[in-house]
Amino acid sequence: MMIVMKPDATREQTAAVIAKIEASGLAAHIIEGVEHTVIGAVGDGNGVNPEVFEVLEGVESARRISEPYKLASRQFNPKGSVFSFNGATVGGNEIIVIAGPCSVESKSQILETAHAVREAGATALRGGVFKPRTSPYSFQGLGEEGLEYMAEAREQTGLPIVSEIMSQVQLDLMVKYVDVLQVGARNMQNFNLLRAIGETSTTVLLKRGLSATVEELLMSAEYILAGGNKRIMLCERGIRTFETSTRNTTDINAIPVLKGLTHLPVLLDPSHSTGEADYVTPVARAAIAAGADGVIVEVHPDPAHARSDGKQSLKPEAFAQMVRQVKAIAEVLGRRVAPAPTARS
Amino acid sequence: MMIVMKPDATREQTAAVIAKIEASGLAAHIIEGVEHTVIGAVGDGNGVNPEVFEVLEGVESARRISEPYKLASRQFNPKGSVFSFNGATVGGNEIIVIAGPCSVESKSQILETAHAVREAGATALRGGVFKPRTSPYSFQGLGEEGLEYMAEAREQTGLPIVSEIMSQVQLDLMVKYVDVLQVGARNMQNFNLLRAIGETSTTVLLKRGLSATVEELLMSAEYILAGGNKRIMLCERGIRTFETSTRNTTDINAIPVLKGLTHLPVLLDPSHSTGEADYVTPVARAAIAAGADGVIVEVHPDPAHARSDGKQSLKPEAFAQMVRQVKAIAEVLGRRVAPAPTARS
Amino acid sequence: MMIVMKPDATREQTAAVIAKIEASGLAAHIIEGVEHTVIGAVGDGNGVNPEVFEVLEGVESARRISEPYKLASRQFNPKGSVFSFNGATVGGNEIIVIAGPCSVESKSQILETAHAVREAGATALRGGVFKPRTSPYSFQGLGEEGLEYMAEAREQTGLPIVSEIMSQVQLDLMVKYVDVLQVGARNMQNFNLLRAIGETSTTVLLKRGLSATVEELLMSAEYILAGGNKRIMLCERGIRTFETSTRNTTDINAIPVLKGLTHLPVLLDPSHSTGEADYVTPVARAAIAAGADGVIVEVHPDPAHARSDGKQSLKPEAFAQMVRQVKAIAEVLGRRVAPAPTARS
Amino acid sequence: MMIVMKPDATREQTAAVIAKIEASGLAAHIIEGVEHTVIGAVGDGNGVNPEVFEVLEGVESARRISEPYKLASRQFNPKGSVFSFNGATVGGNEIIVIAGPCSVESKSQILETAHAVREAGATALRGGVFKPRTSPYSFQGLGEEGLEYMAEAREQTGLPIVSEIMSQVQLDLMVKYVDVLQVGARNMQNFNLLRAIGETSTTVLLKRGLSATVEELLMSAEYILAGGNKRIMLCERGIRTFETSTRNTTDINAIPVLKGLTHLPVLLDPSHSTGEADYVTPVARAAIAAGADGVIVEVHPDPAHARSDGKQSLKPEAFAQMVRQVKAIAEVLGRRVAPAPTARS
Repeated sequence: MMIVMKPDATREQTAAVIAKIEASGLAAHIIEGVEHTVIGAVGDGNGVNPEVFEVLEGVESARRISEPYKLASRQFNPKGSVFSFNGATVGGNEIIVIAGPCSVESKSQILETAHAVREAGATALRGGVFKPRTSPYSFQGLGEEGLEYMAEAREQTGLPIVSEIMSQVQLDLMVKYVDVLQVGARNMQNFNLLRAIGETSTTVLLKRGLSATVEELLMSAEYILAGGNKRIMLCERGIRTFETSTRNTTDINAIPVLKGLTHLPVLLDPSHSTGEADYVTPVARAAIAAGADGVIVEVHPDPAHARSDGKQSLKPEAFAQMVRQVKAIAEVLGRRVAPAPTARS
Repeated sequence: MMIVMKPDATREQTAAVIAKIEASGLAAHIIEGVEHTVIGAVGDGNGVNPEVFEVLEGVESARRISEPYKLASRQFNPKGSVFSFNGATVGGNEIIVIAGPCSVESKSQILETAHAVREAGATALRGGVFKPRTSPYSFQGLGEEGLEYMAEAREQTGLPIVSEIMSQVQLDLMVKYVDVLQVGARNMQNFNLLRAIGETSTTVLLKRGLSATVEELLMSAEYILAGGNKRIMLCERGIRTFETSTRNTTDINAIPVLKGLTHLPVLLDPSHSTGEADYVTPVARAAIAAGADGVIVEVHPDPAHARSDGKQSLKPEAFAQMVRQVKAIAEVLGRRVAPAPTARS
Repeated sequence: MMIVMKPDATREQTAAVIAKIEASGLAAHIIEGVEHTVIGAVGDGNGVNPEVFEVLEGVESARRISEPYKLASRQFNPKGSVFSFNGATVGGNEIIVIAGPCSVESKSQILETAHAVREAGATALRGGVFKPRTSPYSFQGLGEEGLEYMAEAREQTGLPIVSEIMSQVQLDLMVKYVDVLQVGARNMQNFNLLRAIGETSTTVLLKRGLSATVEELLMSAEYILAGGNKRIMLCERGIRTFETSTRNTTDINAIPVLKGLTHLPVLLDPSHSTGEADYVTPVARAAIAAGADGVIVEVHPDPAHARSDGKQSLKPEAFAQMVRQVKAIAEVLGRRVAPAPTARS
Repeated sequence: MMIVMKPDATREQTAAVIAKIEASGLAAHIIEGVEHTVIGAVGDGNGVNPEVFEVLEGVESARRISEPYKLASRQFNPKGSVFSFNGATVGGNEIIVIAGPCSVESKSQILETAHAVREAGATALRGGVFKPRTSPYSFQGLGEEGLEYMAEAREQTGLPIVSEIMSQVQLDLMVKYVDVLQVGARNMQNFNLLRAIGETSTTVLLKRGLSATVEELLMSAEYILAGGNKRIMLCERGIRTFETSTRNTTDINAIPVLKGLTHLPVLLDPSHSTGEADYVTPVARAAIAAGADGVIVEVHPDPAHARSDGKQSLKPEAFAQMVRQVKAIAEVLGRRVAPAPTARS
């Protein structure tokens, strides 16, 4: 249920509403808007009638949200979420470009890449240290050593860092290092992990599962939101279909669909959604043209020798050209690519 | 096999190559390029060795085309096909916008729509008169009466007309009226129909089947090309996947994939690929951003009362806005939306 | 709408109902059951009220059929359709086994196969003479010559013959020769062809399209039924999914789903639904265990040298073993494999 | 790599091979067969040549396994794995039937169900206590309380118990109670969880992901096998496709495909693969007919009031009939449904 307070509602009135929500066995989530405070009342609350809240003082309106996701619904925040992490902003007019290698392979590799993508116009740096590999015999990532290299790259370039978490047991370690926790496609419905992340305040990049529907993606976001963490970017990264000419099928429809259904920022990952470097730039352009709030792209200084995903990684020069084109298309739509934060050192 | 003639090859030398091709049990297809004449030798020719042709006078090179499609391969025409129909041009720098109702419903409906889309910037007019309906009890189209109304609309607006053919037995009738024969998704592998169309010289808009791969689409184009008709536009119109939030899933990857594999122009139909008017404009923008050579869009003066596909039809005002945005994105990529031909009357 | 006549309704009363149906702009379809005559009233009849018919004399009940398919609905014939073609019976307790090569390649090949499959226990002979091939350069079938060989095989073995029709223009020729017209997956929504077949009285084997839903298959059957032809067998032949370890994915669920929704017999084609000879027998067993009314299987005396589909063809010995296992499973379910008709010569 | 020892190889010779494997940076896995001991050498061993092992004493042959999965390959154990857990046997001629409610809801519910399914012929009891629910607001299971009820049910009926693990942090608790750890579809690629389970000796039921290929399922099994746990049953539970008439599409092809590729037992879950009680029995029959080593079925004493999955749960009477039919089909194939262990109390 969604309860909209009157513009002049007092703190006491808001507190009374929250008390009533909790007394009904529901949890209260508060969004402070410019004009209105909105309170979400979520839980297994089919039996609770909105009228119970409408009669309280300071309440403008109360109504049920018909979608199965509540806090993720656009109704809850019609203007759309905008938030910053370590100097980078996403949402609203700002378009974000996250770039970097699939895996952190060595200190020199990640530092070289970080400087290159920063120069080309990236807003944040990605790099995996725990790798979900299909084979138990493949390279599984550098672990904490990789996180230290990422932190060093942030120190040198100012770029916030994004890295994938694979398990609840990695949470404390990851939160210590990263600016954005990436939840990969294979863990989109690892509900224990989502719930644990919901209790942190670290920004999340939640990727759509290979065969997850748009609604299921929003339900997974709801797990994190229900825990109190509202800093979520959603990411379309291609779905699995019968077509084999590309690694996955980019569901470009999902961009306007998600923008209509939720207030959360929506990114696209053209590297995974195509699986082929040649198609990354055209599909990155398409993402921005369709209304995405950003892209996340794999860039490697030497794709032919990458330890993972080399086939779909752009070289820095190609990435720089991609950024120029993405910027031009963003301008057509009245938006801009967010500048990177300034380096600390 | 593909045989490239030397720039200064004589007519006699070319004729000798063709004679040799035919003597090998293959068919010859000629493309006159600016510098070179290229001759395709197609058929069940696994046993024929390219060296047989390389020794002929005037031949620069001969080689097998490894893809199963031959005449459709980009190798065959690396600069890409450009052609015109009734004053409209597609391919190269020109982007085409085809618009109109799903079905021709009445004379006034199609005339009103034709004038509206022309004014908004469309290059050609679409309208179905034979409708492939899932139910035998649904409206099946106006038939020849509808074609007469389409012809009248062309007369008044100058817009070339595009309409769907459903069966070989409609071919003579359709060719008499239309500028572009549309082959719908359900008939993409109606090989008898494709072969019959290959023997005409009418331009074709060949739509991808709901579950056809990109390679199968090219093989269907090959059926038409093998008959001698080279005026083919391909059209991505959404594929069938598990996702149900949209009618189909727009395979935006197919745009750069097809542009790499074939010289034929590639369009996208965001009306069918999304099934929802709200998503048509974002996905049309994405198509052009991804490198498509045009879009085909359903426009209806009164979508709520359309006899078919009302849910996915744009009103003329929304279409006009879509054209403006598509034009701006085309310019970013150094292209332009082709102007409509001038009306004759 | 479905109008059930009383057991003692007179011819005149039935005629009056039909007259009323036609006066309402609908078409009447009559099914003479053991106890009741049932009349289907189909067309664009949303506005016609069942009460109009319930007041007529001799009418027991009248009600709308909620599914989009009407004549195909099991409601229309709850006991299930049973019919014979040239001595073979399908439906009820009888399980049918159709076998033969993908393509008729020569007189000796089809005669040898026909005798082999008859001896192994097949009920009918399949063999393609018009082949829907993805490539225009592949073997396209023997055409009428092949039909003559099929007829000769029928003459020698008594097996009814089944062959695929690809186009409306082949209809007269096909009807002259075959006992069963097969409509292939690629033509399942070739509505003009379906409508033309509906006007014949030849038995039809209607295959599900690669990405057609169960409901769409029933709608295509409805096109044939609406024309008056009630002799339709449906056939699951695998759908297209992301899985690539088999050519297609056998949708075994479709067997009980279809048996619940429609009165038409339901077959399965394990050759196409798996694409691999090793998997044909296990999946044929599964089909019968799931409740299918028969199977259609590719058998070739020399699969390694078949001109098409050799990989998925059984040798006669393997086919004979398959029939033995299918018979044993049929018996567990209280059914039997229908014996082949006796040869005429 | 797979190294087959001679029938008369000594312990010392085997030990020498293992030492050589480990010295090559690989891990050794031993399977003691009736005639031969087979040693798997796995890891990132592309550079190691089989000839290095073939020259050792006692070695009959050494060769690379071409599939990406090694220990899971049928080559490694051609006769197929057979193993028991708490008195129940799976593999070989034995077919297993696991049954019980989706969720443990109360002590009386699980005890009533356990007695009912035991009487109907089940071999093991299933029941979820940690539920992976799409919505954070849905019932999430009884947790350890539910495990205690399951243990009580085992005590009373003798049935081994099967329950789903959702997270690595539940592992110690689960291993204490259950006979079989179920890994659900959503966790099939939760590689950290798989690796942790590989270090236990508890039997595992590994379910295929909604959009996982057969090869990916085997790669996930390889993660567990590589840790040393060989007691794995694989389970097809339906894949996600475009068809919406059932909850999922049962990939019946996967049964013979998996039986050919791996030595691990293969089960099918017709409750999830169809999503509808009416289709469970036909598809369970099909599974056994196709060669599955067992089925896992949802049974609830009162499906209409189940807290989850009621729509797809069989009542005990319907389940008893299913078992009778499954037994009859098993006998046709020369197999039998394994009897349940005897109760301890």
